[in-house]
Amino acid sequence: MTDKPNILWIMADQLRFDYLSCYGHPHLDTPNIDALAARGVRFTNAYVQSPVCGPSRMSAYTGRYVRSHGATWNGMPLRVGEPTLGDHLRQVGARAVLVGKTHMTADLEGMAWLGIDPQSEIGVARSQCGFEPFERDDGLHPDSPRQNWSAYDDYLVAHGFASDNPWEDFANSGLDSDGELLSAWLLKNSRLAANVPEEHSETAYMTNRAMDFMREARTDGRPWMCHLSYIKPHWPYIVPAPYHEMYDERHILPPVRSDMERETDHPLVRAYHNARVCKSFSRDHLREHVIPAYMGLIKQLDDNLGRLFAWMDAEGFSENTIIAFTSDHGDYLGDHWMGDKDFYHEAAVKVPLIIADPRPEADGTRGLVSDALVEMIDLPATFMEALGCAPKPHVIEGRDLTSILHGKDGFSRRYVISEHDYHWSEMAVALGQPQEDAHTTMIFDGRWKYIRCEGFRPVLWDLQNDPDELVDLGASEDPLCVKTRARMESALLKWATRHHTRITATPEVLARQKIAAESGILIGFWDEAEYQDAVGKPFSSLTPQGRP
Amino acid sequence: MTDKPNILWIMADQLRFDYLSCYGHPHLDTPNIDALAARGVRFTNAYVQSPVCGPSRMSAYTGRYVRSHGATWNGMPLRVGEPTLGDHLRQVGARAVLVGKTHMTADLEGMAWLGIDPQSEIGVARSQCGFEPFERDDGLHPDSPRQNWSAYDDYLVAHGFASDNPWEDFANSGLDSDGELLSAWLLKNSRLAANVPEEHSETAYMTNRAMDFMREARTDGRPWMCHLSYIKPHWPYIVPAPYHEMYDERHILPPVRSDMERETDHPLVRAYHNARVCKSFSRDHLREHVIPAYMGLIKQLDDNLGRLFAWMDAEGFSENTIIAFTSDHGDYLGDHWMGDKDFYHEAAVKVPLIIADPRPEADGTRGLVSDALVEMIDLPATFMEALGCAPKPHVIEGRDLTSILHGKDGFSRRYVISEHDYHWSEMAVALGQPQEDAHTTMIFDGRWKYIRCEGFRPVLWDLQNDPDELVDLGASEDPLCVKTRARMESALLKWATRHHTRITATPEVLARQKIAAESGILIGFWDEAEYQDAVGKPFSSLTPQGRP
Repeated sequence: MTDKPNILWIMADQLRFDYLSCYGHPHLDTPNIDALAARGVRFTNAYVQSPVCGPSRMSAYTGRYVRSHGATWNGMPLRVGEPTLGDHLRQVGARAVLVGKTHMTADLEGMAWLGIDPQSEIGVARSQCGFEPFERDDGLHPDSPRQNWSAYDDYLVAHGFASDNPWEDFANSGLDSDGELLSAWLLKNSRLAANVPEEHSETAYMTNRAMDFMREARTDGRPWMCHLSYIKPHWPYIVPAPYHEMYDERHILPPVRSDMERETDHPLVRAYHNARVCKSFSRDHLREHVIPAYMGLIKQLDDNLGRLFAWMDAEGFSENTIIAFTSDHGDYLGDHWMGDKDFYHEAAVKVPLIIADPRPEADGTRGLVSDALVEMIDLPATFMEALGCAPKPHVIEGRDLTSILHGKDGFSRRYVISEHDYHWSEMAVALGQPQEDAHTTMIFDGRWKYIRCEGFRPVLWDLQNDPDELVDLGASEDPLCVKTRARMESALLKWATRHHTRITATPEVLARQKIAAESGILIGFWDEAEYQDAVGKPFSSLTPQGRP
Repeated sequence: MTDKPNILWIMADQLRFDYLSCYGHPHLDTPNIDALAARGVRFTNAYVQSPVCGPSRMSAYTGRYVRSHGATWNGMPLRVGEPTLGDHLRQVGARAVLVGKTHMTADLEGMAWLGIDPQSEIGVARSQCGFEPFERDDGLHPDSPRQNWSAYDDYLVAHGFASDNPWEDFANSGLDSDGELLSAWLLKNSRLAANVPEEHSETAYMTNRAMDFMREARTDGRPWMCHLSYIKPHWPYIVPAPYHEMYDERHILPPVRSDMERETDHPLVRAYHNARVCKSFSRDHLREHVIPAYMGLIKQLDDNLGRLFAWMDAEGFSENTIIAFTSDHGDYLGDHWMGDKDFYHEAAVKVPLIIADPRPEADGTRGLVSDALVEMIDLPATFMEALGCAPKPHVIEGRDLTSILHGKDGFSRRYVISEHDYHWSEMAVALGQPQEDAHTTMIFDGRWKYIRCEGFRPVLWDLQNDPDELVDLGASEDPLCVKTRARMESALLKWATRHHTRITATPEVLARQKIAAESGILIGFWDEAEYQDAVGKPFSSLTPQGRP
């Protein structure tokens, strides 16, 4: 055990902020996550930097906006020269260890160009987003040639679940009454029990692997940050017994939507409504199948976290481990006539965030609920602070949350930002939007959420008077709306024109970077007297040789 | 000789666009550069991406905006993972060779992090901005410990000019009547003859080195792009005989400035006016010393280019070599109460640009004067096209100028952009401007030049009615000005929010990156029938195994 805390950074995938009992869900009881909130700080305004897995995670792992790291959509390689949290932590001898999903795609072309062997230590770190991959599993294996199997596939086979694609056939399928496989890729099958016992599910497996890591880390002795990154409750929506039958129609909240939303004149919003996944999730019957499974997956996750936390207590890890719990984005589930994610309503872009810090400095904030505007990129900055890693604000764009955790002043943020690249989508096709213009940017100040839509008018919601985001004020001529739109555009321009890529010098280096007249590079001096007046030394003292 | 043309990319340093006879200077006769213009295209609206050496050049060499490459000021290392023109050309077997200045600072930390040996072939390319350094000399050696000498220092010593700092004592000093050295770092000495014969000056030396390279390249046989990059007419302002006495007070144009400019209420512009170099250059007496030397340096450069072009004709290089001539930024020389560069008047941000293409396709445009809005970042795109390198628009942000050179339609640009980071400056100190806010951005549409100044109101000039840029309309309540400012802000926001860092996938890759329902990742399908309706194949055909 070192004098630094360890960090367990738990991430669920596609978990809405409001599908936990501590965040107010009336039918979903998540006592273990709630208990974490009771001994930590629960954030009610935590936003991801993109409402989709890949770019959101690349921001989470680099501490930088999507604008800055450039991996704007799923499968877009993170450029080889983009530093990550893991790279920073390694500098102070701490480990950044992965158990689960990152959605990282390696920049193989960049590595080849720079002569980096992907199998070398540096190459593996670059391929794994800076993490040491104790267990890497992105949790989506629709077609799984044996040579690409994950360790979880091997685990399933070793435990008697043999198939050409055990991930799909056991963990992500159900059975009909004749014992035939029914794929959970089809939503009609969501309420079946997954064809695997809970103890061998992916969620249980990944929980066990985190324990395996912690045992190993105790022997190793170095401080660590472990990213325990679950694929669920992300689709395929299917959960093992008994979770598959814990919830039913009675537990489904009505969709948050209005007819007025559907009648929008906004071309991009209309294109979303017309996309297949949004039309699908606008059907009540489909929601009634999916949402019970989604809730079951969350309940299962909570139970596994309870098991993990109890084990950590028993093994003595809890007293020295900061635990953060969050998600990479939400899930519309039919709200606002939309499905999946990819836009900026609270259901998609806001995530749960709980941080429990066992250190005595945090004793005054246990159970605190913070409405500070925070961004997912703040987590790397916070973890770096805890592990004694020098902050590099031009690299890590997030802001250290320690002051909030320790009940001190010092944290402030006026706006949160999120970005989305939809070049790949049905919307881009429907609108004929060129690749370079198929993007949106959200800026939110705690009341007004403004969405810049390249090529179209903005969307604007007033969350103070319209917390459900049903009324789009993006074209309203109300003077307050007009003024607010101008203010948000201006704030966005301030943000966007900053030097986000100025990453090769810290502020300390920049501060030393003034042209020093003592350097001998003299600009605009007429004669020796002017030099002496300005610099306070004779010109003849300029060089060791007393030149000229 | 290959079937591809070679490229000679000549860059002067700190050469104003209007200090050449072909650009209208009444007293400075530059027949060799004019002859290049007569056999090529002369651009009258060519803008650099930053009005200062380092960032301007990093844009020129990467083909990307300063916003994108991140080397925002002199001495800021270009991040190790930033691809350059040289890297792209190497892919097609062409050489990108440097003779002279780049102002590149290597990202040694980045190289160490990625395990790249700076002495390896890849490490040298990364250190030299992608160039093969036939001769690297940034041309500023105020204090020159022997181990850091340039090859030019050695050359001087070998030719009898021995000293602790031959660059300074011979090439950049004069002599008083007693034979004592007088440094050209002090502007009062600008009109002395440099203490070196012209044939051994840095300009003549670099010209000879370009010839050395071309001789070597003929043996080598690969196609090449040679960047011949002169330090002059950049300060120290001093020129060898006879050029030091070719110009005098009679040849100095009056400063372009007005009293109204000096009375500006704009805090940043006022801070510029109060900076030492601007106050210095606002003095007529100083201009009368500096400008004749500046003109002499340009005349000397033109003569050396004449010598080079004649040699290329004689050696058979001209018929197969595209020649581009330009500069990295201008020089205020006291215009607008300013000295040096670092802001956006035409004197600083506009550069001469001439491209002479010997290929028959360009026969129809010889002597053409083009007023197209072009950016320095267009040169890499143009050179890549000439050498048969696949365009990668998300990497190379510049646009290929070949259509203009060949008299075809196809080139268009509505705005040019330039950026400046002044965190290092007297202005930042005077204004108490924090590092992250000490930046400006220019956007120019051919008529209106709008300068966004973070923290202050914008500056706006109407070059149609005020070609000398004397009247700042940044606070004007004239409806056209109000409307124009809003339009320019909007255009800037469009530019700034684009995915400039999305560099790991070409548009072709992006176009393939749609979620294909055939991939087996199915989002929002209810059942087999819906799948078949959407995809046109039975669900059972989804995998080779015919799953489920």
